[in-house]
Amino acid sequence: MTTDRIRSFLAERRPEGPCLVVDLDVVRENYNAFTRALPDSRIFYAVKANPAPEILSLLAELGSSFDTASLTEIELALAAGAAADRISYGNTIKKERDIARAYELGVRLFAVDSFEEVDKIARAAPGSRVFCRVLTDGEGAEWPLSRKFGCAPEMAIEVLEHAHRSGVVAAGVSFHVGSQQRDTGAWERALATAATVFRTLAERGITLTLVNLGGGFPTRYLRDVPTVASYGESIFDALSRHFGNRLPETIIEPGRGMVGGAGVIKTEVVLIARKSAEDPVRWVYLDIGKFGGLAETMDEAIRYPIRTQRDGGEVAPCILAGPTCDSADVLYEREPYPLPTGLEIGDEILIEATGAYTTTYASVAFNGFAPLQAYVI
Amino acid sequence: MTTDRIRSFLAERRPEGPCLVVDLDVVRENYNAFTRALPDSRIFYAVKANPAPEILSLLAELGSSFDTASLTEIELALAAGAAADRISYGNTIKKERDIARAYELGVRLFAVDSFEEVDKIARAAPGSRVFCRVLTDGEGAEWPLSRKFGCAPEMAIEVLEHAHRSGVVAAGVSFHVGSQQRDTGAWERALATAATVFRTLAERGITLTLVNLGGGFPTRYLRDVPTVASYGESIFDALSRHFGNRLPETIIEPGRGMVGGAGVIKTEVVLIARKSAEDPVRWVYLDIGKFGGLAETMDEAIRYPIRTQRDGGEVAPCILAGPTCDSADVLYEREPYPLPTGLEIGDEILIEATGAYTTTYASVAFNGFAPLQAYVI
Repeated sequence: MTTDRIRSFLAERRPEGPCLVVDLDVVRENYNAFTRALPDSRIFYAVKANPAPEILSLLAELGSSFDTASLTEIELALAAGAAADRISYGNTIKKERDIARAYELGVRLFAVDSFEEVDKIARAAPGSRVFCRVLTDGEGAEWPLSRKFGCAPEMAIEVLEHAHRSGVVAAGVSFHVGSQQRDTGAWERALATAATVFRTLAERGITLTLVNLGGGFPTRYLRDVPTVASYGESIFDALSRHFGNRLPETIIEPGRGMVGGAGVIKTEVVLIARKSAEDPVRWVYLDIGKFGGLAETMDEAIRYPIRTQRDGGEVAPCILAGPTCDSADVLYEREPYPLPTGLEIGDEILIEATGAYTTTYASVAFNGFAPLQAYVI
Repeated sequence: MTTDRIRSFLAERRPEGPCLVVDLDVVRENYNAFTRALPDSRIFYAVKANPAPEILSLLAELGSSFDTASLTEIELALAAGAAADRISYGNTIKKERDIARAYELGVRLFAVDSFEEVDKIARAAPGSRVFCRVLTDGEGAEWPLSRKFGCAPEMAIEVLEHAHRSGVVAAGVSFHVGSQQRDTGAWERALATAATVFRTLAERGITLTLVNLGGGFPTRYLRDVPTVASYGESIFDALSRHFGNRLPETIIEPGRGMVGGAGVIKTEVVLIARKSAEDPVRWVYLDIGKFGGLAETMDEAIRYPIRTQRDGGEVAPCILAGPTCDSADVLYEREPYPLPTGLEIGDEILIEATGAYTTTYASVAFNGFAPLQAYVI
């Protein structure tokens, strides 16, 4: 998954310190795969996955819309050339003054999951469209979602009716099947719920039009994942089954699925050591860890593919850890990672499929280490 | 624990957005408490706990030395006025070129826990003093340490002998009893081990002189913790018991114990909502969370005291979460936090004892949110 362009860049530029390199060609291919797989859905790229200006500009040019989590992300999307009508303020937790500012900037599509958030939007962004996020079970996802976002479907019905009565357009529902979702059927269950919300509100005289299918489209790490096309088919089938020939407007919010596979982190082996003469595993310490951008190794949730310059020979299990003086800064320990027995201090290592949720996750200066450098090529 | 100075600062300055305010008077008191409790130990402040220049300058002026985790922290300590002989490079995981640079800057005291690290120091910082970190069990600590740092005591003996034979001064041993250690007896067990290492090497003709007692001194969060004076007594007793009248030179590395209680984070309630009509708990969303500086709520390890403007009346359990679109950004859910039933959206909340391990832990820009602002007064 390290493209030739990334290899050449690293070989020629030899950047000092850990860094992420993102290949825009892969982002373009991914965008095109999404449009082919779901031709009737609008794509709202989840900016939080990687807000690099080059990525946003490319996607804006390709026609993408943008799902944003904060005012800063809205400003980044605007700066990349997206008109305000291509931006949704997709965070269900917003300060009223931030909603007002987004409204001033022209944003008219907002996420909610509570009465209280509807009230803020009614005051600060009157006439805007809202979609209400419903809770789903997240079954089958590698990075399961908690109950933090969304509300029970029965409550979503009341929240949307409340919006309708408050001078806000009750546009539809959203859900998120869980990040890195490998079960294409997960959307089926969520769409059944969405259709119920549509029907109940129709009976009350409120016509919903929008289903936000969320993200969750996976990146290939160590295991194969279904193709984007197969997700598209499953989703289209489920939409037809639950909405018949009155298909709603749909949007998708790929983040990881758009950029995860487009990036590679270059890191250096700082130390290889054992804890005692009998220690069966080596500890391999890198110059990047949990606080330098690899936060998604939390609970060893995501297991990135790793390439070394000594691949092909014998391997042995290693505990992989970061460079900080924090004992929580360990990447893989519960399930040690097999790495070449010939690995040496000073070797460069490539951590693949790291284009999403790395740069912005990096800490400001924990232990004095600089945040992750990024190059978008 | 919110001092009058912090209250006045917040009332007069009314800073926008979440921020940390650190009261230097409390840092000064803490420093003095450490020197009184352990008058024969040198204090090496763990810069990683909070590297704010004002804190480093104050401590340098008071006579403190500095435990650093990286070149950047060494440079910060030097800039604060500490001479290089008051700085230890306490990370056991260092690039050889960083060791060389530290040596150029005058640093002559280094941590090791492996043969490989000794070799780097022998090449890049010849003649320096090293201490070898030994593994301890961390029993009784709220933030237990993994096996990431240190090696078995038997191996530490070999590592120090290897240093001695490589042109490096085998100075002694270090250990870390675990952060937020509430059992004053934890140092007793570690010192017994240290004394064994001293004796074994003495038999081989190598005289160790230094015991680095590490950190682990707790901050008072919700539960009472032993006083610094009682730690001092326990440590002095254990030293006398295990080293008799040939007491080694000792150093301590307080970080959390020096600055944790000196800081308060001001945050704002962004949303209060329930997930369904029957939901027994409220979800309270703040404008700071796990990625904005409160990383130590990971696994709900540290439970900060929280003050609201509505304290004193009825309380009810809340799930406390941060503002990002990340479902892992939840502070307290397993054990909900009791907060006033009258709490309202827009209320200011004070999160106390947050002076350590907050600002530098904050992510660069996750979800577009700015890192934690800090004011040192």
